[in-house]
Amino acid sequence: MAEMEHPVTVEDGLDHFGDSEILHSLLQVAVNLSAISDFRKMLDMILQEVRGLGKAEAGSLYILKRNRLRRIAAQNDRLAVPQIILHVLNKELAVSGDSLPGYVAMTGQMLNIPNSYMLPSGVPFRVNRDAEAETGYRAKSILVIPLKCSKGECIGVLELLNRLNAQGRIVPFPETACTGVLSLSAMAAVTIYNALLQEELRRAHLETIVRLSVAAEFRDDETADHIRRISHTSGVVARAAGLDDKQVELIRYASPMHDVGKIGIPDAILRKPGRLTVEERKIVQEHSAIGPEILGDPLNELATVAREVALTHHERWDGKGYPNGLVGEEIPISGRVVAIADVFDALVSKRCYKDPHPLDEAMAIIKGEDGKAFDPMVVKAFFSAIDEILCFYRDPAVSQNALDTDE
Amino acid sequence: MAEMEHPVTVEDGLDHFGDSEILHSLLQVAVNLSAISDFRKMLDMILQEVRGLGKAEAGSLYILKRNRLRRIAAQNDRLAVPQIILHVLNKELAVSGDSLPGYVAMTGQMLNIPNSYMLPSGVPFRVNRDAEAETGYRAKSILVIPLKCSKGECIGVLELLNRLNAQGRIVPFPETACTGVLSLSAMAAVTIYNALLQEELRRAHLETIVRLSVAAEFRDDETADHIRRISHTSGVVARAAGLDDKQVELIRYASPMHDVGKIGIPDAILRKPGRLTVEERKIVQEHSAIGPEILGDPLNELATVAREVALTHHERWDGKGYPNGLVGEEIPISGRVVAIADVFDALVSKRCYKDPHPLDEAMAIIKGEDGKAFDPMVVKAFFSAIDEILCFYRDPAVSQNALDTDE
Repeated sequence: MAEMEHPVTVEDGLDHFGDSEILHSLLQVAVNLSAISDFRKMLDMILQEVRGLGKAEAGSLYILKRNRLRRIAAQNDRLAVPQIILHVLNKELAVSGDSLPGYVAMTGQMLNIPNSYMLPSGVPFRVNRDAEAETGYRAKSILVIPLKCSKGECIGVLELLNRLNAQGRIVPFPETACTGVLSLSAMAAVTIYNALLQEELRRAHLETIVRLSVAAEFRDDETADHIRRISHTSGVVARAAGLDDKQVELIRYASPMHDVGKIGIPDAILRKPGRLTVEERKIVQEHSAIGPEILGDPLNELATVAREVALTHHERWDGKGYPNGLVGEEIPISGRVVAIADVFDALVSKRCYKDPHPLDEAMAIIKGEDGKAFDPMVVKAFFSAIDEILCFYRDPAVSQNALDTDE
Repeated sequence: MAEMEHPVTVEDGLDHFGDSEILHSLLQVAVNLSAISDFRKMLDMILQEVRGLGKAEAGSLYILKRNRLRRIAAQNDRLAVPQIILHVLNKELAVSGDSLPGYVAMTGQMLNIPNSYMLPSGVPFRVNRDAEAETGYRAKSILVIPLKCSKGECIGVLELLNRLNAQGRIVPFPETACTGVLSLSAMAAVTIYNALLQEELRRAHLETIVRLSVAAEFRDDETADHIRRISHTSGVVARAAGLDDKQVELIRYASPMHDVGKIGIPDAILRKPGRLTVEERKIVQEHSAIGPEILGDPLNELATVAREVALTHHERWDGKGYPNGLVGEEIPISGRVVAIADVFDALVSKRCYKDPHPLDEAMAIIKGEDGKAFDPMVVKAFFSAIDEILCFYRDPAVSQNALDTDE
């Protein structure tokens, strides 16, 4: 059993493998690195190549997230695919000496175990044999490599099991690590890190929206449920209107921003119990200009749609809306969709100044605005999806103040 | 001149280069990919290796950002370093046929020009000779490769100039692209994409803070300038207190969040002209609990510090602060730093209910709270940096309502 610093220099261990074999693998991986868009496919390819170079019968890739190791790729030439899948689904490991990948993630050091059944006593890790019990596959020689991002942080682990010699017998992995294996591990690390960054970026974009929503809720007690209903209805209507999955998601996540500008409207008007004066209505209408100011210049797609929605959800198909009096398809589809979701929710909800409209009345009002306030195509989508919309309204968790159960 | 689809298959063009040479370059790059933390060093290494494989006398890497190509690495075996640097600084290209890199970024297709002085007429691009005029270096054979991220988007361009044969004469790059060059280009693409993602992520994290700040400003007219002053003072004090650059930056960016909880305080109290009642003061104090609610569970370092600051900027060193009555170093350093910046700004600023204190009086009050409201170490840092703090206050752009010019 040997522990080594990673990375080693490029000369180490080259003699264990033919140059052209290593070259082929590296070229295969490198050329494909920027060409394969599917993250898992990319990892499968890397694992395949690294197993080839290490002459390993089996191997796994783990990703480290919130201090847990999750297996994201597994290959085993001896097991049938369903066994591997079962095995993969069940696998999540702690960062600790309770498993070899866990130990390597903890220490950041490579681990090379010639024979896992003949470990010296007192080693600070144990070989987790759960998988063995499930699949019957016995791992004897084991090489475990930490995958590190450019900041040196461990972001995953690569595990190779059972190196086979030309006669198909299990032999230890070379004492000195093979450079090809390390090169491919480095590529795996970069690929995984890339995917992690992309995911983190999506979450970061969403975070701005979420935080602003929470801030807006503090200005208006009704807002939390209202926002969830608008978001759901907008998503359902967008899908029914034939938008693609991505657009539907963007509208669903961005729609909570429609009223964010109300943060800038004084309490005296926002929370006034009676009807508003003409002057006060004008001040309330400013929220559709303040919203875009709060959202700023969009840095990403989600922010772009959020800004659209905040700016245009009070525009009308017939051009009589505000703030810009846009007409028809001048209004972005996001704004047209959220407009109908917003009005419907206002109609069927109790507000401090009004009782809720009965459902049939609310639907008649929406229908009456077909081609006036609303895009006829969106109205059609709304009614085609009305069951799914109402289903959410009738969920007690989101139905306070809206569509009382006797509806 | 030939245009080719990128990427090509791994077998193409291998015969143009020795296997072991390609292998050496790929290993060098791959092993280092996850080990080098400096982005530019990484790109320099990739460019060096790819030039070696392509036997190119010179080469550049461009990064594509907001539809402009910016040169981020340049090497030229014939020019002196200062010439290259001058040349790099001056270089930004449009995505258009006005330059070869611009054309390749536009089309996403590789371009191989055997002799740039013998271009057929009517080609849809021109060779930009500005650099030639500056440095006197003539580029004859040119290979330009688009760098694409895994989504297929072009994120940069690699340009190789003047392939030299064994006799040192300029020859065309091989008709069929060399796989080694393409592999290294792919690695360059992944590396650049990674760096772009990291930068975008930093901006996305900051964006949440910026958007919430803007939202908070709509609740309180004084806030914009107040926030800028607090941010500056906090950064200066943090540096004077011996925190490292990263901590200083985090505190500088996070400090604007200290009062974000005021979004949740009713106008009637927040904008009350006179003194607050005991009851009203309690409501105002809730802002240090509402702030963290708005900020939520931190997803990153910046959000963590923002939450700390929002939660603890009204704690006192002697334990008599709110909301949790923390004592001494129980209060995070970020909270201790922002506390002094906040109080100082309140003292020297005009508010709707009070005139500003004269500077000497304000400083005496701060001194009087040494070891009471404030950490003695932070008080010391504050006074050691007082000139830099006041300099910002005296800048007319941020001094409205604070430190009148006759001060």
